[in-house]
Amino acid sequence: MPYYIGDVIKDQNKLIARTRERFKEDGIDVQISAHVTGIDTTQGMIELQNQQKIPYDILVMATGTAAVIPNLPGLDLPGVFNLRNLEDAIAIKTYLREKNARRVLIIGGGFIGLEMSEALHSAGISATIIHSHALPANRWDGELSALMLEELKANGVEFLGDTAAVSIERGTDAPLRINTDQGFREGDLVLIAVGVKPDSTLAKSMGLAIGKTGAVAVNFAQQTSLENVYAVGDCCESWHRVSKRWVNIPLGDIANKQGRVAGRNIGGRPLTFAGIVGAQSFRLFNLECAATGINEKEAQQIGYVPVSTIAWGSAIAPSMGFRKIGLKLVADKSSGKLLGAQAVGLAGAVGRINALSVALWAGMDIDQISYLDLAYSPPYSGAWDIIHNAAQALRRAISAAKG
Amino acid sequence: MPYYIGDVIKDQNKLIARTRERFKEDGIDVQISAHVTGIDTTQGMIELQNQQKIPYDILVMATGTAAVIPNLPGLDLPGVFNLRNLEDAIAIKTYLREKNARRVLIIGGGFIGLEMSEALHSAGISATIIHSHALPANRWDGELSALMLEELKANGVEFLGDTAAVSIERGTDAPLRINTDQGFREGDLVLIAVGVKPDSTLAKSMGLAIGKTGAVAVNFAQQTSLENVYAVGDCCESWHRVSKRWVNIPLGDIANKQGRVAGRNIGGRPLTFAGIVGAQSFRLFNLECAATGINEKEAQQIGYVPVSTIAWGSAIAPSMGFRKIGLKLVADKSSGKLLGAQAVGLAGAVGRINALSVALWAGMDIDQISYLDLAYSPPYSGAWDIIHNAAQALRRAISAAKG
Repeated sequence: MPYYIGDVIKDQNKLIARTRERFKEDGIDVQISAHVTGIDTTQGMIELQNQQKIPYDILVMATGTAAVIPNLPGLDLPGVFNLRNLEDAIAIKTYLREKNARRVLIIGGGFIGLEMSEALHSAGISATIIHSHALPANRWDGELSALMLEELKANGVEFLGDTAAVSIERGTDAPLRINTDQGFREGDLVLIAVGVKPDSTLAKSMGLAIGKTGAVAVNFAQQTSLENVYAVGDCCESWHRVSKRWVNIPLGDIANKQGRVAGRNIGGRPLTFAGIVGAQSFRLFNLECAATGINEKEAQQIGYVPVSTIAWGSAIAPSMGFRKIGLKLVADKSSGKLLGAQAVGLAGAVGRINALSVALWAGMDIDQISYLDLAYSPPYSGAWDIIHNAAQALRRAISAAKG
Repeated sequence: MPYYIGDVIKDQNKLIARTRERFKEDGIDVQISAHVTGIDTTQGMIELQNQQKIPYDILVMATGTAAVIPNLPGLDLPGVFNLRNLEDAIAIKTYLREKNARRVLIIGGGFIGLEMSEALHSAGISATIIHSHALPANRWDGELSALMLEELKANGVEFLGDTAAVSIERGTDAPLRINTDQGFREGDLVLIAVGVKPDSTLAKSMGLAIGKTGAVAVNFAQQTSLENVYAVGDCCESWHRVSKRWVNIPLGDIANKQGRVAGRNIGGRPLTFAGIVGAQSFRLFNLECAATGINEKEAQQIGYVPVSTIAWGSAIAPSMGFRKIGLKLVADKSSGKLLGAQAVGLAGAVGRINALSVALWAGMDIDQISYLDLAYSPPYSGAWDIIHNAAQALRRAISAAKG
């Protein structure tokens, strides 16, 4: 199944017109291509690029993220694209078709770069990923990322690890060339997927408090430092229930929840956002990849002594076959409390991480997790699930570490 | 993939001999086909059918379940089988092959009967299920069971609902005939799958305390009313963390956990069994079916005022397609606490029920569940998961019920 590539956005203008009509029925004016150039917080007034001024009583900031742009000559060449918004997506798809692209070069092997390689593959286009680390998706443990690398290779995606892009220029055998510290690659298109950062430009210009993460600081009602200004989604921070820190994790599900919380508060039905545990997932061809909570490095930073283990096994019972899965658990040495989990597998990785996300939410320890009651049947797990096996192994590791 | 039917147990005697050898190395004597006829608890002695006596200091009862046998003439005819143990499975498989069976009649449309119909179907054998209720798998809500019925029909399994088997006799066009209150069906083989009950015959003969469920009563260390006698698995009770009652839910994962807990206590490393939440699942062709916690009837029995809702949707994001899933949630009206959940779907039902099983374990309420942080990505869920949608719908239903 193609992933983000297809004919979803066939008739953009019609779609926009219809959407605007619908909102109008509810008395909501939707303005598109309306770039906000300034906000006067004392007057309660926003100013658009076309000088139009619109007054507000309450303002919601949902400015999202901006793509991180590496410092690289040649970024302005035709065929070099960022991955940020719908316009980028439409431009990329148009270009791919018009140029009848056969090979795409992707700078960045995080999960967005990986997802792009899968999407391109399913559209019959080869991909080369150029990544600064040896393994992809560095949020995951190396043992788990190694499985992702195998999956990339099995599906004909070239992965150049430990490789830094140096410049982009016109190619010889193809329109574009990326020179790296390890040689060069040529292709029809270059995608920059080295990450995103919260877009807090407007917020800063308004004097809103910005958190340590660079994202807009909010309270549990999604209010910024100005009482009548709310911020939601990728541009603002979220309370991390495990690290007990304000973090910026730009994901669509978090944005949806924050939007709803802000709407409830603005509409007079107060609600606070209870925060996140860092749950996330992506698909890489036949692999489910998911993670939650914090990793060892983050645990150390906030003062825990993390102990971890990786359990390898099958997502289903032996009588049903073998579907490889690896599950890493991280716990606090002194309390045994679960701090994080990462899973990669041919089945069931997301389901396991969701169960463990709820366990993190509730503050469970490894002893409880070792004996959790899960919905066992052979097509979906062994009688001891890999969650149990991993938790019990970690329990033993903690006992051993305590001596 | 064939389900429980295949060539798993090819060389039973070799397997048994090898297993015995392995245990012997650890000083453990495994006796098979050794029927225990009596236990002298004052002497600490068990007696086998062959009059052999074996002394014990500590005894573990793991007698499992006995099949419920309906009161039906013809049960002793060749080709009529119970579903209880390995011997039954071998006998059924042998019979299916030797008689080149083409149609099997199954009495009972619980999840074991349903699983059998799938197993037979994948072995190229037609199945007719005769069930006393209108819909299969009555642990699940009728709306969800209706989806199971559709799935049976789509796969050519005949389901005779609201039908009572009256007698079994030799058939005309096939070896066996079941007469029902709605006509008759003929087939090569009859499977009795109307349920199981804890096998507490020996326990009763020893004077062990038996719980209200008919299963052996145990404490949290898996000890029975006799200090040196433990009971584990399907023959004993488990503490239900939601209903706060001792229940008997005969499932392999619970049995494994109890066995381990008993072993730990016997071996001098004390551990208590924290109980269950009633998580269970089965596969029916392309459907994942799973449930956890208690249903409305059980909730009422223990004094709750249950409010419930069923959410229908897709297990994956719209951009990735549509995989139908239904999720029922039951919560307590006064506290909003989750009491149970049931899901049936083409994907992700087991994963959702596992996450909700952890929520039940932790005693979460609907408000928390409405905003749980789950590992969102389009191949695995919408930005709002069906868990969130169902919980929010239930929240509104509770508000409405409170008036």
